[in-house]
Amino acid sequence: MLTQYKFDLTTPGRGFSDITDEIAKLVAKTDVATGLCHIFLHHTSASLSLCENFDPLVQRDLEAFMQRLTPDGDPIFHHTAEGPDDMSSHVRTILTTSFLMIPVSDNKLDLGRYQGIYLWEHRLRSHHRKLTVTIYR
Amino acid sequence: MLTQYKFDLTTPGRGFSDITDEIAKLVAKTDVATGLCHIFLHHTSASLSLCENFDPLVQRDLEAFMQRLTPDGDPIFHHTAEGPDDMSSHVRTILTTSFLMIPVSDNKLDLGRYQGIYLWEHRLRSHHRKLTVTIYR
Amino acid sequence: MLTQYKFDLTTPGRGFSDITDEIAKLVAKTDVATGLCHIFLHHTSASLSLCENFDPLVQRDLEAFMQRLTPDGDPIFHHTAEGPDDMSSHVRTILTTSFLMIPVSDNKLDLGRYQGIYLWEHRLRSHHRKLTVTIYR
Repeated sequence: MLTQYKFDLTTPGRGFSDITDEIAKLVAKTDVATGLCHIFLHHTSASLSLCENFDPLVQRDLEAFMQRLTPDGDPIFHHTAEGPDDMSSHVRTILTTSFLMIPVSDNKLDLGRYQGIYLWEHRLRSHHRKLTVTIYR
Repeated sequence: MLTQYKFDLTTPGRGFSDITDEIAKLVAKTDVATGLCHIFLHHTSASLSLCENFDPLVQRDLEAFMQRLTPDGDPIFHHTAEGPDDMSSHVRTILTTSFLMIPVSDNKLDLGRYQGIYLWEHRLRSHHRKLTVTIYR
Repeated sequence: MLTQYKFDLTTPGRGFSDITDEIAKLVAKTDVATGLCHIFLHHTSASLSLCENFDPLVQRDLEAFMQRLTPDGDPIFHHTAEGPDDMSSHVRTILTTSFLMIPVSDNKLDLGRYQGIYLWEHRLRSHHRKLTVTIYR
């Protein structure tokens, strides 16, 4: 048995948006004791991540790492129609993930102590992003 | 309730094969209104990806990025039994993914407008690749 | 219908621990003919991988690759509270995955011939790691 929700989010531009509470509320509302929660992002220039949730420097360092690995305006890229952050965003999405699947145990989202759920916007400017959450029991 | 399919594919060598239609047809045939579709690739030198489906330059740029990040014949690699593209293919697989899980909503595979499902062959030569598709409602 | 198991593991420090047999035993015990097996790691400095299971040089080369890509003590990192292997471990986790989902077919875990399931410890020292396995039919 499953329940599916759609929701969307406007990101402030490049960076991490913590969506842990929003997902946890959907799990609570669905009243599943044991199961799995699937989260899917319908885009190719933003991704989902289970990031360390305690020290904001981790997010800063992940951005610095990605900027070194796949810089905006990289001269090896030919897909530049939407600007210098277009192709680097597709690469960052491919190197991370567009979906997560997290256990539900004892009626709650069973994340590790330091795991948070983040929508990672890779485009420099604000974007409207759609997600689908499917919860199985 | 679930339905499982096996299928296979011969790739033309390194590059992207669009399998979106093949997966969408399995979903249609299964007649699931709401659920999840899981796709699994049984190999360690090719991967699956949710790649931008509009501009073919994106695929070209992803290959160029991977060739810079993990070039064939990289002197740091010792696992070279099957040639210079052997270990670079394992690395590319580990950095991407061997499985996808995509929502089914309103009786169809609910991809974003620019998301396509691709089998990404990392070996230079043609290979025979096996997949398993499992659809839950 | 689903069955969920919790287990944990003490890693010997950085490197790959093969957990294929442990997962296969849980699948056998659950007696599922056709389904999916989900494995989740509750940590942000270790990951799961479907790695080539035949030649140990592959694991050696993957470590060498990661050490070049995201070296311990990288001067671009500011999150260094737990030492030089702290942030590089978070990056390696983000570039790989914290969960796997593998088909069950004919009553067994349906891995490819060369696919093994590995817990990849990224911290240099031994750590206690918790996992949740959820099996659906």
